[in-house]
Formats: sequence, structure tokens, C-alpha cells
Amino acid sequence: MRLNGLSAFPITPATPAGKVDVAGFRALVARLCAAEVDSVGALGSTGSYPYLTRGERRRALDAALEEIDGRTPVLVGVGALRTDEAVALAQDARAAGAAAGLLAPVSYTPLTDDEVYEHFAVVARESGLPLCIYDNPGVTHFRFGADLVGRLSRVPGVVAVKSPSPAEGDVGGRLAELRSVTSAGFSIGYSGDWNAVEALIAGGEAWYSVVGGLFPRTAMAIVRAIREGDVAEARRLNARLEPLWSLFREFSSLRVIYASASLLGLASAEPPRPILPLAGAARAKVAEVLTGLGLDTEA
Amino acid sequence: MRLNGLSAFPITPATPAGKVDVAGFRALVARLCAAEVDSVGALGSTGSYPYLTRGERRRALDAALEEIDGRTPVLVGVGALRTDEAVALAQDARAAGAAAGLLAPVSYTPLTDDEVYEHFAVVARESGLPLCIYDNPGVTHFRFGADLVGRLSRVPGVVAVKSPSPAEGDVGGRLAELRSVTSAGFSIGYSGDWNAVEALIAGGEAWYSVVGGLFPRTAMAIVRAIREGDVAEARRLNARLEPLWSLFREFSSLRVIYASASLLGLASAEPPRPILPLAGAARAKVAEVLTGLGLDTEA
Repeated sequence: MRLNGLSAFPITPATPAGKVDVAGFRALVARLCAAEVDSVGALGSTGSYPYLTRGERRRALDAALEEIDGRTPVLVGVGALRTDEAVALAQDARAAGAAAGLLAPVSYTPLTDDEVYEHFAVVARESGLPLCIYDNPGVTHFRFGADLVGRLSRVPGVVAVKSPSPAEGDVGGRLAELRSVTSAGFSIGYSGDWNAVEALIAGGEAWYSVVGGLFPRTAMAIVRAIREGDVAEARRLNARLEPLWSLFREFSSLRVIYASASLLGLASAEPPRPILPLAGAARAKVAEVLTGLGLDTEA
Repeated sequence: MRLNGLSAFPITPATPAGKVDVAGFRALVARLCAAEVDSVGALGSTGSYPYLTRGERRRALDAALEEIDGRTPVLVGVGALRTDEAVALAQDARAAGAAAGLLAPVSYTPLTDDEVYEHFAVVARESGLPLCIYDNPGVTHFRFGADLVGRLSRVPGVVAVKSPSPAEGDVGGRLAELRSVTSAGFSIGYSGDWNAVEALIAGGEAWYSVVGGLFPRTAMAIVRAIREGDVAEARRLNARLEPLWSLFREFSSLRVIYASASLLGLASAEPPRPILPLAGAARAKVAEVLTGLGLDTEA
């Protein structure tokens, strides 16, 4: 499978003690299937993977795979602080039937390039699971240079990268640079919803999307416009979402999506503590934007 | 107990699978007792706490407490990504007999000030363990402002802060600022070995020290000079260690201390993967500096 199009990342509803609400999670995944997303990104950062035990992560993955029943590939977060834990999670994911693993260089002690390279090589080799490099310095605090992504693209089993979308500048030029140092067939995709559409227009193959995890029809409309070559329509649909992107930047996409799911009655869960649910004026602002954009009726 | 003087942070020797080498750990702790350090900082960042399970952290703490047998207070890392995990670790630490917990705002999703405040308040309240705020943006990526430390100093049970030592500027002025916003009796101490001596001279109460965890006599000599008012001697002893500080800055104190323990035969463990042990020229450089400073004979 070559990762492309919309990869939709749902939250993982769970109790305050970290037990996954399997029925609630399946309901969110069912929305993604109904909207015919190109892949489901289970247990991404939005799915709060680092806050869940290995057992709960397996329960969530099994539930997603059962709900999806082969209709769309599942990409699953297998990141962990320790290399042996990441290996075990990737082995679990392969045994369960995930199409690929999303591996972030989760860190506490800051890591060197060689340490990250070795971490990825060991997880790929010992699990046999195709891996997508999860490059998100906002949570891992590790910065991938193009040269390291290039080296990793030549490790057997490392098949894709999920890069942060450039906020400005020559988006196409940076994509071309990454393309020039990575192996043939390596998929280059983007996250960071509010800048991702320009990165897709420039030729990025996949959009790893938070908004797509709760509002898949809205995100798929943008992806379809780009596929049909209607760049103006894609930009129009994206610009329309600016009030939501503004909330994402202010409160983080994770907090806003949890509040949205709660406001629309799509999931009753709160984010794992210490992360606090949005309340008061912040929550009211989210409600107002959802209504203004008609996202309450996509639900 | 008011935290002061040298708090010495040893590594926690463990197998590649994360099982603590209790005998190896006790041997390191025994060195600290013999050197009469003011407190032992078990399972700090140098003690790789986030890489160990709750069970292994309890085994290590029990071993340290048994070895120390009441001779010196034990401060223990109780940080975790989830609030409920940090509560459980702090409860374990209190039950075991630790004098205080060292709590870092470990994060994946970046945290707000209110989330960190609530995290600390819940851990303090639900554990009853005195807590030292562990402020180390290099590993947690959270920045404490003086106002947040001030608010936390008024939470019952939050008794101290371990701040990064200022690298330059008005060290005394910044300490005075922190003192002015924190409650009476609140202990302000410093980490970051190469700048900590100036922070102690300026009036910092405690030095949370990596070098002190393996070379406690060397670190205690500096603390004693300051206690005796011999600032010139403290500065001379500190300046003498510059080749070691230079290695700390180049490779990180954690990697250098692991290599030192291995070179001197004081512990055979390697850091938890993905962190790689120093090898080749880097390891040779550490050996050369240890010999040059006579640290091989402190062993």
C-alpha cells in the first residue's frame, strides 16, 4: 500500500483511568468509513497513543480493524519512549492486521540523528511492519533533516513520511528537495491541517488530518477537489475553514477536536490528564465556529 | 526537610530490557553515602526514570532506601506523562519512605500553565508526598515562568524547585525575583552542573548534580568551599572541571556519566535504547578527561 489521499486521525475515547471506550471509538471509525477516507490513522497524536498502555492500544486497534472490516487500510501509531516498547507495539500492530505503523521518535533525553536512525531500523527489522516516519517536532522535539529522512527511506520497510506542512515559503521546492533525497516509491505526506492543503496542491501524496478524523466529509471534499485538478475549489474550501484553523492554532487541534466531539455528542470522553478539556469561553467559541461552518450538520 | 547542599543524582543501572540492576545501583548509592552528600536524587533524569516501569522504579527506590538506611534523605523522581501515573508513583514513594518527590511536567501534547498547576496540585494532594518542582525544559519542553513557580509554592506540599542554572546575566537578580514570588520556606535550587556553582554562590540552596551522582567527593568539595565562604576556592574547583563540562555540553551529561561509570568499572550498564552509549573517539575523549582530572582515582 502506498499512503495517499486523506488519512483521517480520530480521537480515542477513553475513561479518566485510560480504558478505551471501544464502542465510542468504533462509532468514530464508522464515520470515517462512511465518508470513504483513503486510510484511517488510529492512535496518532490526536488518538493520544502515548497516554495509553500497550494493552489498551491493542484493544483500540482491534476494534478499529473489526469495524473497518477491510474497507480501508489502517495506519497505527506505534511510537514509544523505549525502542523495545516500540518494537513490541509494531509487532502487535502487524499481528492485528494494520497496514502500516506510524513511528515518532518520542523522546525525553534529546536524541541524536544516529539514535533515531537506529531506533527506526530496529523497529522496522524486528516487526516487519511497513513504517511511516512521524515527523512532528511540536510533540517529539526532534527535528528531521532531509538527509536523515533520505537515509531512513532506504531502510527496508520504511515506506513513507508524515512531515509538518511548511507554514510559508517555497512549499513545492521543499517537497522536490525531499523527493530528491528519498528512495523511489517513498510516500511524502503532510500534517498540520491549516497548511496541509497547499502542501497537497504542491504534490504531497497524503494529508494526515486531524479535522478529517471528526469531519471526514469536509476533508474529503478538499482532497477530491485537488484530485480533480480544481485547485481553486480546494483553496476556497480550505479558506472557509479558517475560523477552525484559528482555534487549532490558539488551543491546539487536539483540545479543539475533543471539545467538538463532545459538543456534537459524538464522543463523551475528555483528553487524558494533565490535558484539560476546553471550558467556558473557549468551549463556547468552538461551538460558535462549528455552527458557523455548518460542521454540526456533518455530524 | 528543607532541600539544600548537594543532591547527588546517580544513574540507575539496568538491563537492556529495563530490569534494574539492584546490586549495581546500591553500589553507586553507597558511594554517595560514603561521601556524605546532603541528599540522594534517585531516579532523576540521569536515573532515566521515564524509561522504567512503575515496578522497576519501586525496586530501585527500595534498594536505595535500604542501602542508605536513614543516613541521608532520598529525593525520587515521580514524573509521568499521565497525572494518575504520577499520583501512583508519588504514593509509592511516600509508602516506601522517600523524603520528597521530584516532579517534572513530562509532556507529549504541550501543556498550558493551568494544566501544569493542576497536575502538581493533584499529585501533591493525593500523595501527601512533599514535592520539588523539576523545571528542565531541555527534557520536558515546558517553560516555568516565575509566576507559575510562585503559584505552585503556595500549594500545600510543594516545597522546592530545581531550576536550570542561568547560563549568564544577573544570576543573583533572578534568584531574588524567584524568592520574591515564592512562599517563605520554599527551597530554590539549581541543576545544570557547569553553571550551578555560580547559582549556589549567588544564594541557591541546593545543587541537583549529575557529576555528584558519580563523583560525590569532587562535588562535595565545591559545596563545602561555598559553605565555608571560600568563593574563590569553589570557583577554582569548578573551573578545573571545565574539560568535563565541555563533554557534558557536547554529548549530554547523561551519556558522559554512563561512559564514565563504564570506563571506571563502577557500573556496566548502558543507557536505555534508543539512547546509544558513547563509543570510539567520544568514549576515548571521556577516558582522557577523567584521567586528566584525576577522577579515575576518586573511584
